[in-house]
Formats: sequence, structure tokens, C-alpha cells
Amino acid sequence: MKIGIVGLGLIGGSLGLDLQQLGHQVLGVSRRTETCERAIARRAVTQASCDISLLATAEVIFLCTPLGAIQATVEELILHLQPETILTDVGSVKTPVVEKITPLWPSFVGGHPMAGTAATGIEAAQPQLFAGRPYVLTPVATTPPEALETLRELLRSLEVQLHQCSPQDHDRAVAWISHLPVMVSASLIAACMRETDPAVVELAQKLASSGFRDTSRVGGGNPELGRMMAEFNQPQLLRSLQGYRHCLDQIIAKIEQQDWSGIEQILVQTRQARPQFLNPSDQPQDPPTP
Amino acid sequence: MKIGIVGLGLIGGSLGLDLQQLGHQVLGVSRRTETCERAIARRAVTQASCDISLLATAEVIFLCTPLGAIQATVEELILHLQPETILTDVGSVKTPVVEKITPLWPSFVGGHPMAGTAATGIEAAQPQLFAGRPYVLTPVATTPPEALETLRELLRSLEVQLHQCSPQDHDRAVAWISHLPVMVSASLIAACMRETDPAVVELAQKLASSGFRDTSRVGGGNPELGRMMAEFNQPQLLRSLQGYRHCLDQIIAKIEQQDWSGIEQILVQTRQARPQFLNPSDQPQDPPTP
Repeated sequence: MKIGIVGLGLIGGSLGLDLQQLGHQVLGVSRRTETCERAIARRAVTQASCDISLLATAEVIFLCTPLGAIQATVEELILHLQPETILTDVGSVKTPVVEKITPLWPSFVGGHPMAGTAATGIEAAQPQLFAGRPYVLTPVATTPPEALETLRELLRSLEVQLHQCSPQDHDRAVAWISHLPVMVSASLIAACMRETDPAVVELAQKLASSGFRDTSRVGGGNPELGRMMAEFNQPQLLRSLQGYRHCLDQIIAKIEQQDWSGIEQILVQTRQARPQFLNPSDQPQDPPTP
Repeated sequence: MKIGIVGLGLIGGSLGLDLQQLGHQVLGVSRRTETCERAIARRAVTQASCDISLLATAEVIFLCTPLGAIQATVEELILHLQPETILTDVGSVKTPVVEKITPLWPSFVGGHPMAGTAATGIEAAQPQLFAGRPYVLTPVATTPPEALETLRELLRSLEVQLHQCSPQDHDRAVAWISHLPVMVSASLIAACMRETDPAVVELAQKLASSGFRDTSRVGGGNPELGRMMAEFNQPQLLRSLQGYRHCLDQIIAKIEQQDWSGIEQILVQTRQARPQFLNPSDQPQDPPTP
């Protein structure tokens, strides 16, 4: 199959590596010539160009640009395409993308591979990044069934864990388990920054251990990514934040009221619920708990 | 030196293993005969008994019972002691312990080893558990300097990272970096449990990855431990929770106002601040971030 990839970063590059390996012809487009050259050198693409018209004859095109660039990319891209070309994206929010792109190109299927590393860029691309990981597709009522089936078949060959749902359900789910944790975790760091007693600050920094490290990890991550989650998933993230604030307020109230068995009950429930959100395929051993 | 340990669990047992290894005579007391036998078999103690009078001639005694049992233990113990015996505890909150025990026994020094594993009990005890880890002592104005110095010397021989501060500063610091994260993390799990759409719940559970796993870890931990933090460190934990709620409300307000650069600014600041709270000695590599 002739496959196009726009955006040759971690996700686009890793898709290219696997698809080339499977024998497909992979055409890559990047804004930077150096990235095109590195993608060819790393065998992530067969051919690469800064000119999007390279993809004119591609059968399936993966849009791997940042969320904010998808619409402009599609507007330029579709001037060159044949009507049966299948477009799909890899953005981490689906409703706004699907709402904007579907009217422009009916054979569009929203997608979200739940895989990645802390690193970015073509040099971070790696084979088998998606194998065994969830990959969500969010077709809508107007999505041509044959476009969806072609894409599903292609993704199955990457050995992904395929899921399918509405764009809104996707965005609600990732608000809970991906976007809310970033805001919760960032608030923890921001709160510790409010301590004004220098002796307490110094002590807190020296005594902080794995509990703080893990709870603060995603709040100390990429700020552009966090902003993007908030900007593109605003309604669902706000919904999750309101739910979170309610739970936090319940805990604060119980501590104020010295309702210790109430606190313990909540913690018994959260201990019971947590394993349902842990994928065995995604499990390093939990580190020691001081 | 003749050293007593009351409570032969993870902390008491691990202290015993190291102190025996250093050539001290270690006398252990547990409520359960089996624990005494296992502690002897594991060479965590030289002698052990369920009768606390075993410790009558000890020079330094580590109180390694749960926080709620320390006062009753001391009240019983001091009936048997010589006045120069040094008492110290290993509880994770210091103000209430120091306030209750100091009037009963002037040669008491509050202590808190910041070490542990997820496992508990004498079988979890291990050598060198404290080496390289922070160990906080919280003497007060009336603490005899020679008692403090004897204890400091003993702890130095365990190669701990020794810190010293007031009980209140200790409790404020651990409220930020240890107790607040538990409540923040538990609220995240509790919030996800509020989702009522079964399709979204199922999807969230399937898509949750390392971000959710890490942010929720301490909130899915031991409920008794979480309750104890709240109960014994109530004023400082509430202070931290109020500060946290303020930061969370700021983030919610910025998302409501669509102040995306404001969100990004906060995340730039939290990314900068986080490394100050990470101890290099305590660092596994951060896991991949999907």
C-alpha cells in the first residue's frame, strides 16, 4: 500500500518505521528538509519532501502534526488528493478534530494511538512503539465503512490494541485518565511552591521521596502538551476538574470534621478501584513506598 | 551498646538487623510470640520477649509501634527504666508525639526515618534500609544535649542522611511532600469513580496508562496509613490542602476563561520547580510518558 505521513516526529516516524518494515511504500512530509533527510536515513520513509503534493497518490494518510496544525494541513493537502484517499490523525483529543475535518474530507477517521515516550522528534522514533498499546478510532455516522475497515486492517498489522468509540466518549475518557492527572499533579507542585518559610521549603525538598516524585511527574512535564489538552479538550477537562474538586472538598471536609473513619473508608474505596485502571501490559513494578 | 526496640515490623526489624550487624546487643519486644521468634531467627534481635520489662537495662530504645500506640507503650515502659535511658520513636508525624512523650520522659528525642517498602512486618525487614536515606530528629529546648548526641552518633553509624528541625517544621514539610500527595492522588481515583456512563468508564479503564498509574499510586495505598496521616497531622495537612485547593481553583479558572497562555505559564513554573524536590539518591529513571 502507498501510505502518506505528514509530520515526521516521534509518532509519525515510528509509524513509518513499522509500515516500511511491513513492506508498504511510505511517503513522508515535514516542514524541515533536515527532518526529511533524517527520516529517509532512519528508514522511517521511502521518500520524503517538504512539498505536501508528494502525497497526491497515497491511499492512506496519517496526519501526525500537533493538534493545532491539523486543520490547515488538511486544507492544503486535499487540493492534491483523489477522493478515495483515507485520512486519519493521531491527535490526543478527538471531538474538535472530527468536527473540523469531516466536513472537509468525508473519508476521515479520527485516531489516537496511546503510545509514546518522554522524548520527541524523528530521532526518538522507534519500531514497535504501538504494538500491544491501545489505539482508538472514533468514526462517526458519515464515515464510509470501507475507509474504516481499511484503516482497521492496517492498524491490526501493527499489533495495536484496537478500540472504537465516539469522539465525545474518547474525550471524556482521556479527560479522566490523562488530562485531569496533569492538572492535579501540576497543582501539587504549585501548592508546594506556596510555602513561604524557607526552612520548611528546604526540608520539604530534602525529604521528598517516591510518593512526591510519582504524584508530581506528569505535572512537571511538557507545558505545551498540557496547554494543548486544556485548549482542545476544555469542556470535558472542566467536567473532570469539577468532579475532582468535589472529591477533594469531601476529603477536606472529613479532615476538618475529624471524621477519621470516613477518610479511611474513602481510601479503602480508592485502593479497591485503582487496579481497574491499570493495564497489565503497561505495568512496571510499583516502586518502594517510603 | 544495649539497644531496645519496641515493635518488630519493617522499621523495627530493619533497625535491629543493622544494629546487630554493628555489634550492639539488641533487645526486641513485640506483642506476638511468633514475631519475637521470627525476629530472633532472622537475627534482627539478640533476645526478644512479649514482656516490655526486657528493656529495663537498655541504653537507647527505639519505639517502632504505630503512632496511635506510642503513648501507651511509653507509659508502660517507663515503669521499668533507669532515668538516663534515651527514648526515640520512628513515627511519621512529630508534633503530637513530642508533646505527649516529652513530659513523660525528658530524655526523649522524636525521630522519623524516611525509608520503607510497600511490604510490612518482620519478614519485610532488610539490612541497610536506612543507609543513604533521610532520617529526621526533632529535639526541643528541653532535650538533653548528650541524649541527642548519643542518638546522632548511633544513627550516623547506620549511614543515614541526618536532618534536624523542630517538630512543627517537620510536620509542615511532610504535609507538603508526603501527606498531601496521598489526598490529591486519592481524590483523582475517587473522581474517576464518579463517571456514570458505563461506556466511558470502560474506555477510561482500558486507556489509562503510566500518567494515571503514577499520579494515582499513593492514593491507592494503605488506607490505615492515610487515615493516620490525617488524624495525627491534621492542622498541617489542612494547611497544605487549602493551599492546594487554591492552586487547583486557579487552574480551573484559567481553563474556564480560556487563558491558555496562563495555563502554559503555570506548567512552565511547575516543570522548573519539580527537580528541586527530587533527590538524586532516590531516582529511578522516569518511565515513558504516553
